[in-house]
Amino acid sequence: MKRFFPILDWSRSYTRDTFSQDLVAAIIVTIMLIPQSLAYALLAGLPAEVGLYASIAPLLIYAIFGTSRALAVGPVAVASLMTAAAIGDLAAMGTPEYLGAAIALAFLSGLMLLLMGFLRLGFLANFLSHPVISGFITASGIIIAASQLKHIFGIDAGGHNLYELAISLWQHAPEINLPTLGIGLFATGFLFWARKGLKPFLLKRGIAPKLAEILAKTGPVAAVALTTLVAWGFSLDTRGVSIVGDIPAGLPVPTLPPLDLQLWLKIATPALLIAIVGYVETISVASTLAAKRRQRIDPDQELIALGASNIGSAISGGFPVTGGFSRSVVNFDAGAQTPAAGAYTAVGIAIATLFLTPLLFFLPKATLAGTIIVAVLSLVDLGAIKRTWRYSKADFSAMAATILVTLGFGVEMGIIAGVSLSIFLHLYRTSKPHYAVVGQIPGTEHFRNIKRHEVQVSPSVYSIRIDESLYFPNARFLEDTINNAVARDKNIKDVILVCPAINFIDASALESLEAINQRLKDAGVRLHMSEVKGPVLDRLKRSELLTELTGEVFLTQFDALCAVDKECALRAKNDSRPS
Amino acid sequence: MKRFFPILDWSRSYTRDTFSQDLVAAIIVTIMLIPQSLAYALLAGLPAEVGLYASIAPLLIYAIFGTSRALAVGPVAVASLMTAAAIGDLAAMGTPEYLGAAIALAFLSGLMLLLMGFLRLGFLANFLSHPVISGFITASGIIIAASQLKHIFGIDAGGHNLYELAISLWQHAPEINLPTLGIGLFATGFLFWARKGLKPFLLKRGIAPKLAEILAKTGPVAAVALTTLVAWGFSLDTRGVSIVGDIPAGLPVPTLPPLDLQLWLKIATPALLIAIVGYVETISVASTLAAKRRQRIDPDQELIALGASNIGSAISGGFPVTGGFSRSVVNFDAGAQTPAAGAYTAVGIAIATLFLTPLLFFLPKATLAGTIIVAVLSLVDLGAIKRTWRYSKADFSAMAATILVTLGFGVEMGIIAGVSLSIFLHLYRTSKPHYAVVGQIPGTEHFRNIKRHEVQVSPSVYSIRIDESLYFPNARFLEDTINNAVARDKNIKDVILVCPAINFIDASALESLEAINQRLKDAGVRLHMSEVKGPVLDRLKRSELLTELTGEVFLTQFDALCAVDKECALRAKNDSRPS
Repeated sequence: MKRFFPILDWSRSYTRDTFSQDLVAAIIVTIMLIPQSLAYALLAGLPAEVGLYASIAPLLIYAIFGTSRALAVGPVAVASLMTAAAIGDLAAMGTPEYLGAAIALAFLSGLMLLLMGFLRLGFLANFLSHPVISGFITASGIIIAASQLKHIFGIDAGGHNLYELAISLWQHAPEINLPTLGIGLFATGFLFWARKGLKPFLLKRGIAPKLAEILAKTGPVAAVALTTLVAWGFSLDTRGVSIVGDIPAGLPVPTLPPLDLQLWLKIATPALLIAIVGYVETISVASTLAAKRRQRIDPDQELIALGASNIGSAISGGFPVTGGFSRSVVNFDAGAQTPAAGAYTAVGIAIATLFLTPLLFFLPKATLAGTIIVAVLSLVDLGAIKRTWRYSKADFSAMAATILVTLGFGVEMGIIAGVSLSIFLHLYRTSKPHYAVVGQIPGTEHFRNIKRHEVQVSPSVYSIRIDESLYFPNARFLEDTINNAVARDKNIKDVILVCPAINFIDASALESLEAINQRLKDAGVRLHMSEVKGPVLDRLKRSELLTELTGEVFLTQFDALCAVDKECALRAKNDSRPS
Repeated sequence: MKRFFPILDWSRSYTRDTFSQDLVAAIIVTIMLIPQSLAYALLAGLPAEVGLYASIAPLLIYAIFGTSRALAVGPVAVASLMTAAAIGDLAAMGTPEYLGAAIALAFLSGLMLLLMGFLRLGFLANFLSHPVISGFITASGIIIAASQLKHIFGIDAGGHNLYELAISLWQHAPEINLPTLGIGLFATGFLFWARKGLKPFLLKRGIAPKLAEILAKTGPVAAVALTTLVAWGFSLDTRGVSIVGDIPAGLPVPTLPPLDLQLWLKIATPALLIAIVGYVETISVASTLAAKRRQRIDPDQELIALGASNIGSAISGGFPVTGGFSRSVVNFDAGAQTPAAGAYTAVGIAIATLFLTPLLFFLPKATLAGTIIVAVLSLVDLGAIKRTWRYSKADFSAMAATILVTLGFGVEMGIIAGVSLSIFLHLYRTSKPHYAVVGQIPGTEHFRNIKRHEVQVSPSVYSIRIDESLYFPNARFLEDTINNAVARDKNIKDVILVCPAINFIDASALESLEAINQRLKDAGVRLHMSEVKGPVLDRLKRSELLTELTGEVFLTQFDALCAVDKECALRAKNDSRPS
């Protein structure tokens, strides 16, 4: 029970002290989340209230199922962009079909996460290598920022990749609305400054460090309040400034996602991608925060918690949610001790939904766009590109492919290209395992790589040590290597496979070993094995390799060599090392 | 030059002796190949002469480019089935479009092989694990045999998977043609008997062993001759027996494949699958035969040779070809010494195409079907299924999936399912690398797994040895393992990563190590590394891990432990082992 309902665990030791810490964190996160939830709904092409709805039920549900003490679930930038990309071609923005598709996307994505959780498929997230996810997020950040320029300029442009966006912005450039541009530039500039400058500014004004720290996070709220007041005071909506307008007050009504098989099939791939990308983000921030307090998270349970949260979001009329990075860090820094902080945040958002929406009537969309731009440009990590280039060209190529394909062909193609390329490169790498031909160190019973050490070899013996488990990607490599060695040197009468690094031999590699044994037999060469690990040997006993083996299996390489070469024992005694 | 034209190598030492050996082999293979080439054309749904055309140019071309001394290239059963499956839905059998699609398939498949050869992508064939290819061939054999029953029964049935075939055969069962059934059963029965019984039969009749061995391979020719005579003598064509009929005499005229982009796109996937399956078969028989004489083959050059052969087949009006298993073994056993034997076979088939086709007019299709059935049922390897089940359940599941999907949904889906599942299982396995928490063997400087040996550990030190390279599929596993250990035991002050088995650290694993280092730092724990291999350390120096590392990098685990635990050196001296 506690595995599936972690709330049963932490709630038992819940104290008044924990409550007040959680509450403080919740208030700060609520203030941060109100403009963000509106902005990300805008980014996904959805009505503003959908962002609020996605910030209530999912948080309550995560508090029940989640294992991270500080994770803040809700709408985030990348998932919102992926939502827009997934449903943009399925229905016209602003229609009930568009909203229905977003809800279906959250529902399906949640179902997939749940399923992966029950089947313990969390390892699927490993397929997204760091360079791919980092490249993907950088490229997404650039696309998101570009997509928000239309709100800053007050023009009507669109597109799901950088090329489409640039063309569209250029075509609509003459229609720029100056009051909107003013608001947009002010909001963006202020938020950029507030990110780094607000805290020192407050400190200089004599505000206590703790309070300054908290107030610095409320920059977006200040921008929202200021620009809303200006828009209201100067009736900017009559001068072409897009405002949020009427947000229906009241809590979301439970709904079912549209049960349309055609639609579900069309959104299956994006739903899976949103699920996995969201999960990777969630797990990475959750484990970072957990480790800071030496706490544990359960990756499989996180799949269930995130899945249930998304289903909750769908049923309450919201769109895909995930664990947000910056919001979770704020939650953690503000002192959140348990997932209850998330539940209190949900209450805060619910109160806002009930009572504060009239205040947001005059909020300019350009302000929300500024919030998004400032938030996502911090996701663009050019340093990571440079570091990856320096460290590994193969990883860099996967990262570059992800970035370029994402920018050029959109988020779905980008992530698929990155994952495919990195799996391809991985299989390529494992298809050429590290190996060494080994010889005896004179005066000892030890064996080392003949290329690196002064060792002695028997001319009729070929001793090869494979430094990796044997499985299908490298099975043929082993065949080729041994075949070539034996074809090249006709003196060889014995081949010894030195196996201390082999943890596993799969059926393909077993067939290869049997083929090697048979071919060597035909060529009059015996095959031996030495230093085979216990579990590997146990498994080999289930096959016919050991009975068909022309040679023997030896405990040590020294035993093996001595069995086929009389001088081996002699060499072990007579130390003739040059040094 | 010699790399791309192996003929330049072996032709220089070509002697009269080699010539006569090659010629004998070529005559035997020619006799075997005539009925086979007709039969496999039938299997692919193509006119009989296409089978002959595919047995001329490809053989000549392989003789120039191939590195195997004994490989016999030409039409084979599995590639013919895959051809029929690929183009069956694109055009009606018997139309010029159908033939054009088959030619395009050979051309595209050849282009892909050439490209893979120039890019040295031979390792792609490794993705087809042994259980998948073995399961695929077994299932293909069953489908092929089932698909030939219509010729044995003389009815008109079809389908690309077992279900469709069974339904279709059942529906058309009332139309069975008895003379056809008689011919078919006789041919099939005779060929089954001839496989094993003909040689002992001939030996008992006092025929010399060498000659009996050769004559035993001519069973199919005898069946062809006998049933053709019967069909001619009794005018069976007027009694409903399908005969081969008029085969246009004369050599193939060079043609270009249809330049139809739509068509090419549709056949791209099957062309790739035919290319890879054909290559895997080719390389496996070629390396088996090469090893018997301690010769080498060049896997990348084989891609080029097979690619050029397929393009040659297309341009001379043929369909996809590959290195056939049984035919190559016959070629080898008959004494073929160089690829020239293949060229002589081509000449033999060309002569047959010019002069013998009138003799084949009355050849019943049921005889060819019998030839196919007997040939492919030897491909069905139920023993391999049992062996795989016993050896590894994971490999068995990939094999079973391949067989079931191939039987149920056809060859393309079957192979895609098998490859996907085996890559998936492989990534799953590598996502959980083998590792050991290690302790010191008292009285020594050695360290071993605490679960298996009587070792001593320092309560404040966690020494973990990962027995695999670190890359993205297992990066998170490492994070989780260390996080959990440190969260569980609050005494831990130092973590030592023991790295002798790590050959490679990719960018994902590097990020994980940096995250681990940072998290441990936040938790007041130091991270050290010991026994890092030279190349790994060199690469790490290009990152910031070593400068940020809270601990140190040590040459040996003993040095590492002694640096953080004073009792380490003491334990090395005081031998307190219980035994």
